[in-house]
Amino acid sequence: MSQKNQILGVLGGGQLGRMLIQSAINYNQDIHILDPDPNAPCKDLAQKFVTGSLREFDTVYQFGKDCDVITIEIENVNTEALEQLQKEGKRVFPQPEIIRLIQDKREQKQFYDDHGIPTAEFVLTADKAEVKENFDFLPAVNKLGREGYDGRGVQILRNESDLEKAFDAPGLLEKLIDFDKEIAVTVARNSKGDLVAYPAVECAFHPTANLVEFLFAPASISPEIEKKAQEIAREVILKLDMVGILAVEMFVTKDGEVLVNEIAPRPHNSGHHTIEANYTSQFEQHLRSVMNWPLGDTGLRCPAAMINLLGEEGFQGEAYVEGMEEAVSEKGVYIHLYGKKLTKPFRKMGHVTVLDEDVDNLKKRAHYIKNLIKIKA
Amino acid sequence: MSQKNQILGVLGGGQLGRMLIQSAINYNQDIHILDPDPNAPCKDLAQKFVTGSLREFDTVYQFGKDCDVITIEIENVNTEALEQLQKEGKRVFPQPEIIRLIQDKREQKQFYDDHGIPTAEFVLTADKAEVKENFDFLPAVNKLGREGYDGRGVQILRNESDLEKAFDAPGLLEKLIDFDKEIAVTVARNSKGDLVAYPAVECAFHPTANLVEFLFAPASISPEIEKKAQEIAREVILKLDMVGILAVEMFVTKDGEVLVNEIAPRPHNSGHHTIEANYTSQFEQHLRSVMNWPLGDTGLRCPAAMINLLGEEGFQGEAYVEGMEEAVSEKGVYIHLYGKKLTKPFRKMGHVTVLDEDVDNLKKRAHYIKNLIKIKA
Repeated sequence: MSQKNQILGVLGGGQLGRMLIQSAINYNQDIHILDPDPNAPCKDLAQKFVTGSLREFDTVYQFGKDCDVITIEIENVNTEALEQLQKEGKRVFPQPEIIRLIQDKREQKQFYDDHGIPTAEFVLTADKAEVKENFDFLPAVNKLGREGYDGRGVQILRNESDLEKAFDAPGLLEKLIDFDKEIAVTVARNSKGDLVAYPAVECAFHPTANLVEFLFAPASISPEIEKKAQEIAREVILKLDMVGILAVEMFVTKDGEVLVNEIAPRPHNSGHHTIEANYTSQFEQHLRSVMNWPLGDTGLRCPAAMINLLGEEGFQGEAYVEGMEEAVSEKGVYIHLYGKKLTKPFRKMGHVTVLDEDVDNLKKRAHYIKNLIKIKA
Repeated sequence: MSQKNQILGVLGGGQLGRMLIQSAINYNQDIHILDPDPNAPCKDLAQKFVTGSLREFDTVYQFGKDCDVITIEIENVNTEALEQLQKEGKRVFPQPEIIRLIQDKREQKQFYDDHGIPTAEFVLTADKAEVKENFDFLPAVNKLGREGYDGRGVQILRNESDLEKAFDAPGLLEKLIDFDKEIAVTVARNSKGDLVAYPAVECAFHPTANLVEFLFAPASISPEIEKKAQEIAREVILKLDMVGILAVEMFVTKDGEVLVNEIAPRPHNSGHHTIEANYTSQFEQHLRSVMNWPLGDTGLRCPAAMINLLGEEGFQGEAYVEGMEEAVSEKGVYIHLYGKKLTKPFRKMGHVTVLDEDVDNLKKRAHYIKNLIKIKA
């Protein structure tokens, strides 16, 4: 571990950057943040906070020039600037070409195919007309190649009558998987090549908003499925030759297949519980991996549930957290608010982690907390 | 829990304030800091950081006027200003009169005596001459009434030849206790009167520097001693009628008596392990108590050791952490650096917490880590 004060620059100053800073404080690791929103969650906590676009070459390039290592907390950034910085000797993790790959779901799917990574069958579509031509592929998930995020740019086309809403831009159709479970495995790798994997977690999505609503760790899957999922996640980060932390979301099908759904080369919603539940949080692990420090133990200290605190439907404006007093009175309940003043429906305003040695009790308590806390205005 | 953005002002911006801020982030709790050192550990992390004296009435008063709740992370502050702020409706916890009591070890001892709280036998001394008159009280600990801190203002007088170095200012002589163990119990109380106590921890002091060198949780004491220690700690905070967090350091004598040694009405070195080892950290508990939120569960999640990272003797200047890479490669080892650029002998530069379910192994590992990490320049 270098002792000279290395600056870590982060593109994006949202909740992921905020929780990264909370970890970095323990290491005296200075962090600079670039974010377009002057009121981003990181604004008061970074050693330097720059307001500016993540998409403009000059803004990203100038920001990065002051840093030694540059990372992201959102994929939608200017990769040309990152490549230029890399050429000039900055360490950029995840590497710019990986960010570019992730920015396009079409390339991502092609990558799985090229490297023998199991994923749902798919067909690339240039526009709405091409989706329509592939009507025999339905029921399918129609994804936009670019700009999809947190539920945007993803929709299910069940039958021909749905075809009219197909995305009229480069995208893809993916066979609708009749899955048994959705799971995620987080892996991390540093420049020395050390590689660690977290135990699989199980995600339950919001029925309409395509956002994680509940997460349970450990996933209730067989040791065989656990092993398969871990192997696939390791395979993905190795094939990408990536440095940093990578969340690999997977489907477990009813006949025991494990298929990669999507990946995120940064701390991810599916790892928030690690702050309290694991020996090393995903945020500290991200720091360790991009800074080329030794990686931390990934073991689970205690079964955990994670609940996203999403802005309640029908409320918009200054956020008010209902039920917080009751929630924090409970043993093993951890609130994380993200410092966002304004709420709107489904906005990620915070999360709650619940710890309980008894897995059945844990599920009950997670539902209780979920119904207790509401983000209103 | 009030939803309106209440400002918590903290007098002192050292490591205790820094770890308090790390907890406060989870609650969107804004914190203002006052500290005389423009490079204090909190400087980049507080919503507002004011450089100024903690001892001057005007500085403290002006700082406090912008806050809703005011607390401390060091006792040596202007209590007149705090009283004035309290009169004007600010909530000040711990209460100013308690801070004043703690500022003077003579008053502190008198308080124990007046309230039947067990403590080592003592005699108040006005000056060196009066210490000398009490030569038959030796061997004794000679303490300065005021300004003692982290090993300063405390010395042992073993025999008459030591009398020449007696403090020539108001102080006290305390019977030297031939103790079996030193333990500490942290208690917290909010304005509603809720009261919680942490399990006792065991402290091992540095042989010469009068600073905690190791801490082990839980303390290896009998259930009877544990119960007695908890009762005494609860009794102290109740008799003080204090709101906030209070560390109660105690001696366990060889014949099973429990005597209060010193108390600190703020987060304390003896509670640093709670960040990883307990359900609720002492910093979050401090926040909960002064903000009048529900108090958190104090249970220990896992046996823990805490090692202070003190500036190595013989080194002064820009700090360098030796052995960090090996240390963070270990499972369940947590580094906390305090953001202090310059080291000097015995300066508190950080701490390390070690978790291990096996208590014997934990002790071995704590010694290994202690020998591994050195703060040099």
